Amino acid sequence: MTENAGKTLDAAVFGAGRIGRIHAANLARQQGVRLKYVIDVNREAAAALAAQHGAQVADIDGALGDASIGASVICSSTDTHSELILKSAAAGKHIFCEKPVDLTVERARACAEAVERAGVIAMIGFQRRYDPTFTALKARIEAGEIGTPEMLVVTSRDPGAPPIDYIRHSGGIFKDMLIHDFDIFRWILDDEADTVHATGSCLSDPAIAEAGDIDSTAVTIRTKRGRLCQINTARRAAYGYDQRFEILGSNGMLQAGNVRPTEVVAWSKQAVSRDVPEAFFLERYRAAYASEMAHFHDAVIHGTPVRTTVADGLKALELAEAAALSWREGCVVKLGG
Amino acid sequence: MTENAGKTLDAAVFGAGRIGRIHAANLARQQGVRLKYVIDVNREAAAALAAQHGAQVADIDGALGDASIGASVICSSTDTHSELILKSAAAGKHIFCEKPVDLTVERARACAEAVERAGVIAMIGFQRRYDPTFTALKARIEAGEIGTPEMLVVTSRDPGAPPIDYIRHSGGIFKDMLIHDFDIFRWILDDEADTVHATGSCLSDPAIAEAGDIDSTAVTIRTKRGRLCQINTARRAAYGYDQRFEILGSNGMLQAGNVRPTEVVAWSKQAVSRDVPEAFFLERYRAAYASEMAHFHDAVIHGTPVRTTVADGLKALELAEAAALSWREGCVVKLGG
Amino acid sequence: MTENAGKTLDAAVFGAGRIGRIHAANLARQQGVRLKYVIDVNREAAAALAAQHGAQVADIDGALGDASIGASVICSSTDTHSELILKSAAAGKHIFCEKPVDLTVERARACAEAVERAGVIAMIGFQRRYDPTFTALKARIEAGEIGTPEMLVVTSRDPGAPPIDYIRHSGGIFKDMLIHDFDIFRWILDDEADTVHATGSCLSDPAIAEAGDIDSTAVTIRTKRGRLCQINTARRAAYGYDQRFEILGSNGMLQAGNVRPTEVVAWSKQAVSRDVPEAFFLERYRAAYASEMAHFHDAVIHGTPVRTTVADGLKALELAEAAALSWREGCVVKLGG
Amino acid sequence: MTENAGKTLDAAVFGAGRIGRIHAANLARQQGVRLKYVIDVNREAAAALAAQHGAQVADIDGALGDASIGASVICSSTDTHSELILKSAAAGKHIFCEKPVDLTVERARACAEAVERAGVIAMIGFQRRYDPTFTALKARIEAGEIGTPEMLVVTSRDPGAPPIDYIRHSGGIFKDMLIHDFDIFRWILDDEADTVHATGSCLSDPAIAEAGDIDSTAVTIRTKRGRLCQINTARRAAYGYDQRFEILGSNGMLQAGNVRPTEVVAWSKQAVSRDVPEAFFLERYRAAYASEMAHFHDAVIHGTPVRTTVADGLKALELAEAAALSWREGCVVKLGG
Repeated sequence: MTENAGKTLDAAVFGAGRIGRIHAANLARQQGVRLKYVIDVNREAAAALAAQHGAQVADIDGALGDASIGASVICSSTDTHSELILKSAAAGKHIFCEKPVDLTVERARACAEAVERAGVIAMIGFQRRYDPTFTALKARIEAGEIGTPEMLVVTSRDPGAPPIDYIRHSGGIFKDMLIHDFDIFRWILDDEADTVHATGSCLSDPAIAEAGDIDSTAVTIRTKRGRLCQINTARRAAYGYDQRFEILGSNGMLQAGNVRPTEVVAWSKQAVSRDVPEAFFLERYRAAYASEMAHFHDAVIHGTPVRTTVADGLKALELAEAAALSWREGCVVKLGG
Repeated sequence: MTENAGKTLDAAVFGAGRIGRIHAANLARQQGVRLKYVIDVNREAAAALAAQHGAQVADIDGALGDASIGASVICSSTDTHSELILKSAAAGKHIFCEKPVDLTVERARACAEAVERAGVIAMIGFQRRYDPTFTALKARIEAGEIGTPEMLVVTSRDPGAPPIDYIRHSGGIFKDMLIHDFDIFRWILDDEADTVHATGSCLSDPAIAEAGDIDSTAVTIRTKRGRLCQINTARRAAYGYDQRFEILGSNGMLQAGNVRPTEVVAWSKQAVSRDVPEAFFLERYRAAYASEMAHFHDAVIHGTPVRTTVADGLKALELAEAAALSWREGCVVKLGG
Repeated sequence: MTENAGKTLDAAVFGAGRIGRIHAANLARQQGVRLKYVIDVNREAAAALAAQHGAQVADIDGALGDASIGASVICSSTDTHSELILKSAAAGKHIFCEKPVDLTVERARACAEAVERAGVIAMIGFQRRYDPTFTALKARIEAGEIGTPEMLVVTSRDPGAPPIDYIRHSGGIFKDMLIHDFDIFRWILDDEADTVHATGSCLSDPAIAEAGDIDSTAVTIRTKRGRLCQINTARRAAYGYDQRFEILGSNGMLQAGNVRPTEVVAWSKQAVSRDVPEAFFLERYRAAYASEMAHFHDAVIHGTPVRTTVADGLKALELAEAAALSWREGCVVKLGG
Repeated sequence: MTENAGKTLDAAVFGAGRIGRIHAANLARQQGVRLKYVIDVNREAAAALAAQHGAQVADIDGALGDASIGASVICSSTDTHSELILKSAAAGKHIFCEKPVDLTVERARACAEAVERAGVIAMIGFQRRYDPTFTALKARIEAGEIGTPEMLVVTSRDPGAPPIDYIRHSGGIFKDMLIHDFDIFRWILDDEADTVHATGSCLSDPAIAEAGDIDSTAVTIRTKRGRLCQINTARRAAYGYDQRFEILGSNGMLQAGNVRPTEVVAWSKQAVSRDVPEAFFLERYRAAYASEMAHFHDAVIHGTPVRTTVADGLKALELAEAAALSWREGCVVKLGG
């Protein structure tokens, strides 16, 4: 328990877009939480979200200058993350920040050091670690159900590529999309990468190649303990959002499957069929987002350890850079450390 | 749209027990709704629930005498349902009432007539009709996916029998447990019973037989249009709460399966295994309860037609009585009308 | 071990139709078995089957008069079964006979008595009891996996109705189609019927009703020990041949599912889909037919007890008659004994 | 149709071990086939298999010197394959040879050239290409169901490592175990490798590492057309033999799942569980082995094109060598051609 136990928490939300609205609603639902400020360059969006939660529209310095604010919830665009983390840390605010920490390892490292120095609680929004299926699987590994983990296979596919303009500013598929898979790899195998190999292709839309990126990747990681991980991703899976993984252990295997909207099964002349998976991440990870913000609240109020730290964000970013290098150079990349 | 469109709704909640707390929270979440009163013979429970929603503790007449109250939400014990429906209708309040309307057909009929006369909106809490899986299945039948519905098989099993004292006052398994299945039958087949046959046994606990009841039933209904329905129920399924049905049509079949807590699959030396179903009705029908209260709110505010009327509650009760008679007499019962 | 152990077996096959050819091939595959005669009113069919197995075409008396013949394999039309059983028993031949024994209880009883008197091994072709899935399930019940069996739900649907002329001579749906399900009921629950209720409808083709029959049935059996069984059948399931059952016990449930031709799963924009079940009984029970004839061979050569006796055939027929009576009279039928 | 259409086929079987007995039985079942010779250094095994099929024990030259022999069925140890292929080709016999052609690319190439020169039909025993599930999946790809194939993920795990002595002479995991997966890759993606990356570990038994081998591999292939393939293998999956793959296309995905012995589903307090997969390759690929030999028979008698040629065996071997090189050197290997 920290000194905050039992106290209320006033929070400032940075970014009133889609994910900002979700985090704001999930945080507001926690006991004793008050959303006090909403900050967004789009004043209209800020005002709408503020109104919904009885908060006020503010600017960065106004919000961080208010000593009553205990937490910054950073849901703004990626290029603002590091600045907001640094300022929030400097102001002594606890921090929740959407992934990624930053697109450069240098700034991400600076953030990790800043929150460390400031002694604030800082959590990165790798929401998959809060998903009921994934956390149940992780707990069963830790309970020894499959013995020693040996091989992880991650399937991670989006229902369609984002607009090409998004892709141009995304930092590339490894930082934008696989960042989640790199985090899952570290969490599930409880190990660090020794070598990384990545290859890929642009198969769905030539415009992605013109933007210097790819839409399909195949990544292999060998860990320091000799464990193996394969990740396959695609920007476009015609059947929808596909998020599965399986972990082979010395004593068995655990799989995490997709979540379906309903449990209807149809038997026709042609086939026996079920629903395709939940449409995209907002639907698929609805429960994870709720649980994630409850976790942040617990960390701030009760001092429970943060599951997804800025250091985790930094590690995932380093893997993304290594994978991108491997892909560009056609070589195997050895990780430091 | 009714004259209430756009207006706010003040509500009185009768019953602060488990289901009352769920309905209260789901109703409070609707736009423009205010829980004004909580009424329960257990004043402590009433006070706790009232405190949670900024409501006041009241008594029946006080609540119904307040002209600002637009809706009664009846979640009290079954033996109070009909009185509260009649009083609420007389006071011109819209009504949501947990199932069953009453344990006697006579009083249930009186309730149906009273709400009709009063012109209030009245909805019975057959929450299954609001479940995402069941409503998707129903919509697909109506879209013609399986042609003409011909045969319905309903599996409805509880994870364990309630306390014997509950059973003694439950009205018997047909009214207490199968009431839901009889409603599902009418909804899915969109037809009325012509004949009913029921048999059953007490297989799990002799105390149930001593209380004059059974714990396992097998019911067959033939409809006026010659369609067939089989219902099998058990008070005790060792593996948990089991709520499935399947509907055979002239052109195919649709099944509604159980919902699992997670999508983890485990491969061991012995078996490939998945989660057992959600533990019991509160977990299984969480989404249904939320959707149900949104539906009630829509009905009151926007005048959308009520999916589960008091007349539906009455019909289900008549089927329960016919089934009980069939079981007791060992005969086939012909339904009137 | 009988005196036949280690010896060879010469057999006569009666009926060279579809099922005769299957049984002949499966029997011929057994060690030391020689198909010596094929008998069929259709001489051409008999000749073709005989040629395939190095057998001769014969007539009934010729075949049964040959002292070297150890076994009669009766696969001819239903109306010839009892005569061939009686003659084979009189001639001291061991008997395999396709289901049903006969369409009348009287003649079936006479057959049971005749084989008893003659001391010959006699086995009825209830092939489902030899299916790998069903036998595995039965073994697991007997191993106590689900405790005491309490409730059985049988789904038994054909992909389409046979020609109307077949239906006219079939003895009705209860004797023709449900005879298998009544046998499964007795085998799986290991109990006898106390009461039977059956209802049904003609939903697929009015010609079936004109022939005095129905195409959809719902049967409920309560056993002497109070266990419950529900059977639902249909002559026409648009998605194919559907043969499932599930057995609830005091400690869990076991289900027997359909068998698919392949394990391909397809993920499209619309659905995640698998194969429909094996097309019809010849495909679905291919392994069962092979195992059945090996079982018959074991019984004859090694004296292992017969799993499906003429007495079983008689019991199934009695249930079919009781069900037909219940349906016609709209009453519950009490079984004798 | 070749000149052999309608004719009979006399065959010599080399190798009377486990797989030899399976191939012999499946070939003997074909219309007009006679097993004439069985050749094995183990005379007892040869005699037993010969007796079963009415064949004679012979030696290599005796069998190949018999002009009546139309086909060599080579099921002997790997180190004898190339010699028997060369001799059979020289003698003008059609050839079925178990995989691999040889452990060296040079000798495998010599075999490919020899059968080409001799004009004999030669088929390699990549039985997976004859499996009902895999062939159905392949046919559906070719029918365009998922559009253009883009990414293949192959899971290939054995239930346990073979004896260490076997491993020492196996040619290493890539040639011994992944040879099948490399063939599946070429067949399913209908493309050739441009680059290969392989890594691996010895995780189950240090004796394997001492023998210079690994037991777990992760291989990535990028094809000439930019398609991606990931293969993961393990010598030891505690839950049994695991043979799955999935192919993502521009318009959907197809998966090939494991085959189970039965369709029993058990619901207990703990889990809902199914059978583990068929135990090992002899059970899993029983239908494939039968279909494979029918295919060989068709090729010889009717001249139908061979699905798995010696050239295919050579290509798979080249991939295995490239993968082994990648693993040993820790680099990405570019394929020639």
